[in-house]
Amino acid sequence: MPEQVCISLDAMGGDHAPEMVVAGAEIALKRLPHLKFLMFGDEARIKPLLAKYPGLEAVTEVRHASQEVTMDDKPSVALRQRRDSSMRLAINAVKEGDAQGVVSAGNTGALMAMAKFVLKTVRGIDRPAIATYMPTQRGETVMLDLGANIECDENNLVQFALMGEVFARILFGIEKPSVGLLNVGIEELKGNESVKKAAAILREIDLPIRFEGFVEGDDLAKGTVDVIVTDGFTGNVALKTAEGTARLLVHFLRETFKSSFWAKVGYLLARRSLQRFRERMDPRRYNGAMLLGLNGIAVKSHGGTDALGFSNAIGVCHDLIANRLNETIKGELAAFEEAISKAPIDEETIALAAGQAD
Amino acid sequence: MPEQVCISLDAMGGDHAPEMVVAGAEIALKRLPHLKFLMFGDEARIKPLLAKYPGLEAVTEVRHASQEVTMDDKPSVALRQRRDSSMRLAINAVKEGDAQGVVSAGNTGALMAMAKFVLKTVRGIDRPAIATYMPTQRGETVMLDLGANIECDENNLVQFALMGEVFARILFGIEKPSVGLLNVGIEELKGNESVKKAAAILREIDLPIRFEGFVEGDDLAKGTVDVIVTDGFTGNVALKTAEGTARLLVHFLRETFKSSFWAKVGYLLARRSLQRFRERMDPRRYNGAMLLGLNGIAVKSHGGTDALGFSNAIGVCHDLIANRLNETIKGELAAFEEAISKAPIDEETIALAAGQAD
Repeated sequence: MPEQVCISLDAMGGDHAPEMVVAGAEIALKRLPHLKFLMFGDEARIKPLLAKYPGLEAVTEVRHASQEVTMDDKPSVALRQRRDSSMRLAINAVKEGDAQGVVSAGNTGALMAMAKFVLKTVRGIDRPAIATYMPTQRGETVMLDLGANIECDENNLVQFALMGEVFARILFGIEKPSVGLLNVGIEELKGNESVKKAAAILREIDLPIRFEGFVEGDDLAKGTVDVIVTDGFTGNVALKTAEGTARLLVHFLRETFKSSFWAKVGYLLARRSLQRFRERMDPRRYNGAMLLGLNGIAVKSHGGTDALGFSNAIGVCHDLIANRLNETIKGELAAFEEAISKAPIDEETIALAAGQAD
Repeated sequence: MPEQVCISLDAMGGDHAPEMVVAGAEIALKRLPHLKFLMFGDEARIKPLLAKYPGLEAVTEVRHASQEVTMDDKPSVALRQRRDSSMRLAINAVKEGDAQGVVSAGNTGALMAMAKFVLKTVRGIDRPAIATYMPTQRGETVMLDLGANIECDENNLVQFALMGEVFARILFGIEKPSVGLLNVGIEELKGNESVKKAAAILREIDLPIRFEGFVEGDDLAKGTVDVIVTDGFTGNVALKTAEGTARLLVHFLRETFKSSFWAKVGYLLARRSLQRFRERMDPRRYNGAMLLGLNGIAVKSHGGTDALGFSNAIGVCHDLIANRLNETIKGELAAFEEAISKAPIDEETIALAAGQAD
């Protein structure tokens, strides 16, 4: 029987909270019976919901929070003025060791700011990153950063590569995930300085990472590599572009099946298969963005998710806890530092290698 | 009867050149009978192809080029060592006034480098940009830059906005296209310095532009605005991510229709409508990336395109010539400079406005 795992939940975060948080916890518990929960939020609203699920109620402790972080709260405001919010208290519980990880479907910026402030970054990581995984032609791919860091230098990108690799290893159960740096395809104009230098470092240093070099925007859907590393600006745009394009095609497809009598009949006949197509693209399957690089596991669920999607975010949080994500990242960092100390590479070497990358 | 328009063609550029170039010109001529062509390339290969189309042959002058630019040629190499290439001579023809615009399906980096070197940028434009248009839920949207400029400052972005607006006006026939700046959605972390400052300039200055502020990656497919402005790194990644995602969904869909007997029957019944779905997404419809900001019209066709796609790139080139793209851009720039001179905004004003944008 696996060890019990305690996850703290921001019960007030998300468009359909607290109902979907409680119902999502119930679904997760059915799948992972060794879970237990700390739920933070409005006691008067949460307790009646819990009463519907005696099994869940038995493994859940509700702790009252007098405040909520709203979707419009700026991170700095949330940090200063929402110290008794469900989000903040749920994060505090991880810091204090009451829970091993936290899941919230609330305001991303506020969650990042609070988690960073409360949990602090892992030694050796300058900045935390947001990572998620997406469906591809070959399976699934992890991408990071998705918006925590607008401008990144080469060291940030190298650290993202290390963290993303560990994340993919745990998530997909692959021993040696391949890693690529997102870049543009026009020769000689290739890449900004940070990207070129990061590639040079990843190539020059003997790390336990399968670095495959540069990848382009379409490699995301192709699944060319298991991990795609980029700055938060590009990653955020790429993720939203992919989501938007997928929705556009589904919209076109829906119009197509309404456009004629035979198309409607065709749809009816193929609808079971089309249902599986829809399931394959279901964003609820890919619900759970990880805040990597913090002293604690923090998972962000989509704000608009339902109970099923939220249960998947809890599942991701569980897997990262059970597989000791942070210990592995720390081990990886130690190996990185050892490799650097053995073969110190100076600015000149990096610049040279980056030049050759052209 | 419209004025005759002469377009120079790089007959050797593209995977299926010169056959698809000649066949593409024939299709374009059928649609636009007032076209005439200069074709640059291997005379011995082009002339026999032309002989198949007497109508086209009558309005086409073939000029021999002893060299070709390959897809692997670096821009700098192409510039120095391919001075007698079909691409270079086709661009020279625009410079010399023999043709009013050029279309090539060859190496993008080489085309950009040569066109910039030969044609030079319009006065007032610091750097040319690559623009294209894409299908959206509301119609079509122009996006630029797609990779000509990896790092952009606020002035580059403002110039892209001006050029993109004129491009959309001509392409879509809209009087006042709306313009948005691509950004990320996480509050307070919003945008890098260039993006914030460009937004401040576009907001503060009284320009004949409908600036709608920031948009995000998913606004591309939604068609929220008519023109999306971004740096070449982000634009290139976004374009390829959208293309890759569209291909992924079509791949999933194809698998779906093969997955069961009833799905196959459904497909057969709906196939006429699905054919229209495919046509709507057909990349050949969106073939023709424009090199904006040069003293001359230069259009890049997809390298892998067929004759139909190439004819669309010729069509785009024709529309830009007929609608005096460059004269309009110059007029827009003059208005911009006048607005600046009337209400000079200094660094401080921009910084202040950019700060408020948070």
